[in-house]
Amino acid sequence: MLKKVPNRAELKKMKPQELNALASDIREFLVDAVSKKGGHLASNLGAVELTIALYSVFDPPKDKLIFDVGHQAYTHKLLSGRMEAFSTLRDFGGLSGFPKMRESDCDAFGTGHSSTSISAGLGICRARDLKGEKFHVVSVIGDGSMTGGLAFEALNNVAQMKSNFIVILNDNEMSISKNVGGLSRFLNTFRSGAGYNKLKRGVKSTLGKIPYIGEELVERIADSKDSLKEIMVPEGMVFENMGITYLGPVDGHDIVSMKQLFRRAKKLDRCVIIHVRTKKGKGYPPAERRPVHFHGVGPFDKASGRPLKKKNGPDYSDLFGRFMTSYGETDPRLVAITAAMTENVGLTAFRKRFPERFFDVGIAEQHAVTFAAGLASQGMHPVAAIYSTFLQRAYDEIVHDVCLQNLPVTFAIDRAGIVGKDGETHQGIFDLTYLLSIPNMTVLTPSDGDELTAMLRFALKSGRPAAVRYPRGEALPGRKDAAALEYGKAEVLHTGKDVALLAFGNMLKPATEAAEKLRETGVDATVVNMRFAKPLDLELVSSLTEDHWLIVTLEDGLISGGAGERIAAFIAEKAAGTRVVTVGVPDTYVPQGEPAELYRLYGMDADGIVSRVAEALKEGTL
Amino acid sequence: MLKKVPNRAELKKMKPQELNALASDIREFLVDAVSKKGGHLASNLGAVELTIALYSVFDPPKDKLIFDVGHQAYTHKLLSGRMEAFSTLRDFGGLSGFPKMRESDCDAFGTGHSSTSISAGLGICRARDLKGEKFHVVSVIGDGSMTGGLAFEALNNVAQMKSNFIVILNDNEMSISKNVGGLSRFLNTFRSGAGYNKLKRGVKSTLGKIPYIGEELVERIADSKDSLKEIMVPEGMVFENMGITYLGPVDGHDIVSMKQLFRRAKKLDRCVIIHVRTKKGKGYPPAERRPVHFHGVGPFDKASGRPLKKKNGPDYSDLFGRFMTSYGETDPRLVAITAAMTENVGLTAFRKRFPERFFDVGIAEQHAVTFAAGLASQGMHPVAAIYSTFLQRAYDEIVHDVCLQNLPVTFAIDRAGIVGKDGETHQGIFDLTYLLSIPNMTVLTPSDGDELTAMLRFALKSGRPAAVRYPRGEALPGRKDAAALEYGKAEVLHTGKDVALLAFGNMLKPATEAAEKLRETGVDATVVNMRFAKPLDLELVSSLTEDHWLIVTLEDGLISGGAGERIAAFIAEKAAGTRVVTVGVPDTYVPQGEPAELYRLYGMDADGIVSRVAEALKEGTL
Repeated sequence: MLKKVPNRAELKKMKPQELNALASDIREFLVDAVSKKGGHLASNLGAVELTIALYSVFDPPKDKLIFDVGHQAYTHKLLSGRMEAFSTLRDFGGLSGFPKMRESDCDAFGTGHSSTSISAGLGICRARDLKGEKFHVVSVIGDGSMTGGLAFEALNNVAQMKSNFIVILNDNEMSISKNVGGLSRFLNTFRSGAGYNKLKRGVKSTLGKIPYIGEELVERIADSKDSLKEIMVPEGMVFENMGITYLGPVDGHDIVSMKQLFRRAKKLDRCVIIHVRTKKGKGYPPAERRPVHFHGVGPFDKASGRPLKKKNGPDYSDLFGRFMTSYGETDPRLVAITAAMTENVGLTAFRKRFPERFFDVGIAEQHAVTFAAGLASQGMHPVAAIYSTFLQRAYDEIVHDVCLQNLPVTFAIDRAGIVGKDGETHQGIFDLTYLLSIPNMTVLTPSDGDELTAMLRFALKSGRPAAVRYPRGEALPGRKDAAALEYGKAEVLHTGKDVALLAFGNMLKPATEAAEKLRETGVDATVVNMRFAKPLDLELVSSLTEDHWLIVTLEDGLISGGAGERIAAFIAEKAAGTRVVTVGVPDTYVPQGEPAELYRLYGMDADGIVSRVAEALKEGTL
Repeated sequence: MLKKVPNRAELKKMKPQELNALASDIREFLVDAVSKKGGHLASNLGAVELTIALYSVFDPPKDKLIFDVGHQAYTHKLLSGRMEAFSTLRDFGGLSGFPKMRESDCDAFGTGHSSTSISAGLGICRARDLKGEKFHVVSVIGDGSMTGGLAFEALNNVAQMKSNFIVILNDNEMSISKNVGGLSRFLNTFRSGAGYNKLKRGVKSTLGKIPYIGEELVERIADSKDSLKEIMVPEGMVFENMGITYLGPVDGHDIVSMKQLFRRAKKLDRCVIIHVRTKKGKGYPPAERRPVHFHGVGPFDKASGRPLKKKNGPDYSDLFGRFMTSYGETDPRLVAITAAMTENVGLTAFRKRFPERFFDVGIAEQHAVTFAAGLASQGMHPVAAIYSTFLQRAYDEIVHDVCLQNLPVTFAIDRAGIVGKDGETHQGIFDLTYLLSIPNMTVLTPSDGDELTAMLRFALKSGRPAAVRYPRGEALPGRKDAAALEYGKAEVLHTGKDVALLAFGNMLKPATEAAEKLRETGVDATVVNMRFAKPLDLELVSSLTEDHWLIVTLEDGLISGGAGERIAAFIAEKAAGTRVVTVGVPDTYVPQGEPAELYRLYGMDADGIVSRVAEALKEGTL
């Protein structure tokens, strides 16, 4: 087991077998740490030797290492002096699961979302050259992240480089789900040499037709495989044609070979792509067997790989998946789209049941949305299931391709609101702010599992662009007395007076709890399940202002530009005099931590709501 | 001159010379129409023969034609029966300059923003196959649009196609500005055969080293150019390796050759890319000489190509450009970034003066922003100059790469607010709604030319992420008595009572005019130049609520989620009782038309403001 991490000088002196032993120790350490705290495991295990090789050749923080997405950066964190901090991994105030500039000067650029590393690396290179500084910039990017358009836009721009920039393509033949598409096929020709063989066959057949010496020539060429291969193998051809030097492929678990290649790459005055082949989950059999499962995990039993915490019931993603599979039986026009998140969003069963109506487009949220718009334009019923934080990538496509044309695409927005331990880059706090400003959009916020299902059905039947946003985690049970859904209508759960709590989605639970607590203090608060964040039930709001002097809005998202502010603006125009208090996330990025502690931090739990009401009571009516 | 457009049956019977004559007539018609109404000329002139060839082989509306960006679709509009409507081109209620599903059933998918056509086309193909229908889908995309990541994401997904999908790469060797980057270089190897020649040299030199027959072999091979070329030319190799068939290149002004290729492509059960080479501005000498100038133009004199309307003074883009060139002299860390819009955003002089600090990244807004973040992380002062509507593509990068890391990137947001005749897809009405909800962001709204310059300087010196959003068109002259800029502080231009007009940016002018008109009716309105949309000067707002019972906010953007609603929400919480009226764009996409008529339509001009105040007065105080 890892006792001490070698510093850079020690690392550079280590012999191959010592480096391999270090890799083995690090791997053990990582499995142990993640088994206790949860985190990203499979991708981190795949990048142990790669990172050791990087630290053996490059000198961070002088040299800049950028880890795309960042869920493979644990070894990097270890080698840059953060071993002790692993006991706080993903805790509130603890070590981040992702690179963060303010955590270490060795984290050259923060990551979390996919496909940013080449753009950021190129920016750093240009700054270096303009300032006349000398250092190396290395962007490490997975083959999955390469399917994101941003990575391609960046690659298209590195062609002009006349100084050193190293892009390491960490190719594990899968992104989070199984890799899809042309890029994957293209990389396959590199991996297998299939392109070379096909080309060789072509050369043989054509040269064979040359008069006079054809046949003899073909035989001779067959013997001179290596020299011919050197010029004809299409490996790297697309990159070479784009003005980028290609090196590889190299075994990403062979430290010595990688070090050699990295040293070669350092000498070139241009952009170099190094194709490194790694195995996700490497060295930990449960993760090697089920790399998708071990992509991101909670605490687990090291021996068996089984999660320590059992699920009590289905989570919202499970319910979404069940709905899709069942709805798919009755609606042949239902089509499901995911951006490399089949398992996580709950579509595994749908994929199996309806393979022809299931599309995993890779890490390509923009394409997912415009593709869905194309399907909808022909009368299909597409559902794009995307995490709230990742849907941000497709904002323009929602505005320009879906809603402008009023095409009935349904957005199943998973992980909406505070998600917890993945931290700033993954919190789903923006979706309401930008979706509510898009004309023609309907936005639904289910408060429990039954409502999720009802709202998905409602969205699909509405014939409009519609988004259903639901949180991460276990689904709340439905209420038997729930009213039927009606377009743009909220549901009043309890009619009180003076104070009304208007809750969106999962905020209904703390709102109900707060109402109980308030009752104990003699305040009989009205409780409303708002259901629709767009259109808002302003008729109800208007009538509430007649006998309530305080309206409290509650949403699991940013206050700034959220649903509550829109209600407040309506009241300020049409019913000025009623006071509005908006509860939600303040104007800040939400750090990592247990959701419960984050809700408490922002006064979004029952106690927080009660004290906001108490505060308002103290200040008195107008 | 074009008198009548042939229908599809007539077109299919026409002989080559008749088709060429038709092309010539159409060209003349287009030059005439655009010279009168303004519009996109160069790209439309380049696509005349291409569109005739498409209509000769395909059958819209049964077959689906999708024109990427859509600024090359005029011939398509003519051939689908919209000749008469050209007299209303780009007018309010008239013919759109872009394809629109509700304008014609021949417009299979609406476009405006770049790089959407392959995704949409693929969606239509999948729907067709699932429904068991038979028709062809053709996406026409320029080489410029191919630099957008969305196009690449889509290409990565067409590899799995087992049915016909035709992508026409309309390669005019430039997008809007000059084409940049690896893709361009890559296409160049197709265009020139340079890749082939390089490969041939490689083969020669390697084969020459083969023992026994090397030298003789090389000579023989040199004679057998064609058969060797067939297998070795890298033309199309990247596409073939991605599972896409490549055909071409073909002369995009040779109708007969294109028809042949299109017929071949129709027969293939997979995705086919047809590489068509065209010339922007083809056939109209002024546009051939200055294709960038004739990309989008106002009415002009046909003989000379000169604009009919002379500029009275600089527009905001000119002032931005002047500022950049001058500031660049004093700040060596200033770097300018554009996404294929050098001329339009006003950076031509900067590019000339500081070529090493100027970056045109292609149509790649996402990359532009993350690249800027990389530059800023190393202490550079990057300015990303992007139209409001196109910046939508980079929303996630602003959230995730710039503002989360609090990196000092300056956004120069041109064409913010209502832009006019380009219509729905181009109105800059969303930027305030999404930018104001991003933590760490500063948003400045200049009300005149001097303020634009002062705000750009302020943003650059602030050391924060900051956006300066300014409108299209002629800059208003500065005010001599303008107060110095102060972070988060508004400027009170006139202190009245009862009613306060809080104006953002270019809405200060109608606000001032409205105040004058109100004065005539005995209402002495306070007029405020808000300056900062984020952070808002809530201290001032708070103090205004003390002696004003009506606050009117004015912004050139959506009301829903805009700055006004945020002020209203603040008042509803902290100063309930003061009434707030929000003036701006309602919850709708803004159609094409003269800006003045659109402002009038939404009550955003002086008269509109006056009547909103009068209405509120009539309803009385609370």
